Amino acid sequence: MITSVGNQRVKRIAQWNKKPSLRNRDGVFVAEGVKMFLEAPLGSLKEIYIADGFLEEIGKAERSRDILGKLEECGYETVSKEVFSKMSDTCSPQGILFVAGQIHYTLEQMAGAAENPLFLLLEDIQDPGNLGTMIRTGEGAGISGVIMSKGTADIYNPKTIRSTMGSVYRVPFLYAEDFHGTICRLQENGITVYAAHLKGEKCYDEFEYCRPTAFLIGNEGSGLTEETAELADVYVRIPMEGQLESLNAAVASALLVYEAAGRRRRGAVESNTPPQEAGHQT
Amino acid sequence: MITSVGNQRVKRIAQWNKKPSLRNRDGVFVAEGVKMFLEAPLGSLKEIYIADGFLEEIGKAERSRDILGKLEECGYETVSKEVFSKMSDTCSPQGILFVAGQIHYTLEQMAGAAENPLFLLLEDIQDPGNLGTMIRTGEGAGISGVIMSKGTADIYNPKTIRSTMGSVYRVPFLYAEDFHGTICRLQENGITVYAAHLKGEKCYDEFEYCRPTAFLIGNEGSGLTEETAELADVYVRIPMEGQLESLNAAVASALLVYEAAGRRRRGAVESNTPPQEAGHQT
Repeated sequence: MITSVGNQRVKRIAQWNKKPSLRNRDGVFVAEGVKMFLEAPLGSLKEIYIADGFLEEIGKAERSRDILGKLEECGYETVSKEVFSKMSDTCSPQGILFVAGQIHYTLEQMAGAAENPLFLLLEDIQDPGNLGTMIRTGEGAGISGVIMSKGTADIYNPKTIRSTMGSVYRVPFLYAEDFHGTICRLQENGITVYAAHLKGEKCYDEFEYCRPTAFLIGNEGSGLTEETAELADVYVRIPMEGQLESLNAAVASALLVYEAAGRRRRGAVESNTPPQEAGHQT
Repeated sequence: MITSVGNQRVKRIAQWNKKPSLRNRDGVFVAEGVKMFLEAPLGSLKEIYIADGFLEEIGKAERSRDILGKLEECGYETVSKEVFSKMSDTCSPQGILFVAGQIHYTLEQMAGAAENPLFLLLEDIQDPGNLGTMIRTGEGAGISGVIMSKGTADIYNPKTIRSTMGSVYRVPFLYAEDFHGTICRLQENGITVYAAHLKGEKCYDEFEYCRPTAFLIGNEGSGLTEETAELADVYVRIPMEGQLESLNAAVASALLVYEAAGRRRRGAVESNTPPQEAGHQT
């Protein structure tokens, strides 16, 4: 059992939590909690730490057998409660924490895997919680991936990881070195780029989105930069009552991806329904 | 200028930020930042504090004339930067902070003001950021008000206030002493209560919501309690791809209120359009 907060491994984890540059240098990230642990692919787990007393506590938990089984299979290290709270990024740690390998996707992989692509293009989203929620909601809507400008918050920030609720393992993503160039490449490949924009004349729910689609979402405070907005094929407006200036970025993103998902769902249902009037029309 | 962190007024504001019971006893809340200050109704402002140097800094800001005008009209107190950071709830304070009177609505006011009510009913939402985002998105969708169970996060928590982005002044709300009784009263008044629930057989976008509507949203971790869910008239399901167990509560709430807003918007457009085929049908 590690009982010294001066332990090198303990210090290194605290640093990985704080410094994106060290995480990227070492190709790892730190995640916490039972849910994240259970969702982590086996092959990605590098180090696992549990707080003294954790095994006794989870004896009562719903999925304790799954947790114990995975711990046995992967191996783990026990640390004192004091050490654990030093390693943890949260105020009330759950007692399990791990180091996992960073995941890398290419644009080719992301576009190639999708039959009818639906992408989120994020420009300079700042809040890690918003970013994580966008990835989580994106999984729910069945998006093909998230492409981020280099100024977007770090996906491996502990707060982002937490708010993805595990979606970070399943939704492909990449930071585009050349964000504008990447948008153009998507367009060259037949993807229509819609930008949520106050200048949009038509509402977001007036489009079909049934063909390859990408949604551009801008920074929380300042929206899309002019240069990026100009690349969009279509501006769509999310109507707002009252005196609101804007919606939360994760909410705007959710409305768009779910509108597209709904259109595609209903489109699929309709195309599976035999056209009843066909006999009369031909 | 107040320069002592031991000043009684400074201490009282720090306490109001931290303790809901003291805020409620005194009928006040604390809010920060230029945007919140500009949106606060004049009559609600009780005390205003600015950090030393704030006036010089905002000289460059876009809305500096509005800010200065409102400060002149209401009167304010300058405090040293050290004192200001003691009063502030944020890590990077904007230099303006105020005390405002709490706002109280009754169910009768909320229901009476709405021609075709659209309510959010929140059971035990825990995260102040989620609560604030729900109120903000609610304003955008044009909801009539938010009714919360007593176990819901405090609307006057500084984090909630911040994430409403000013909507807290414009969206009516109340904490229901008897949440179940209030739901029944809404139903007696002809409001259909839809609950976002995994048991829902139909998707949320298969309903019209054009008549008086309320959406029940449950706690982030555990959803709606069984007793509350049983009161709902209809369960609606938000479909999820991938391996997601649930959506973020503020996202689920946004999808529902915007679906209703869209249906009502399109319904209004349709009913204003003269039915072109009428002549053939009669």
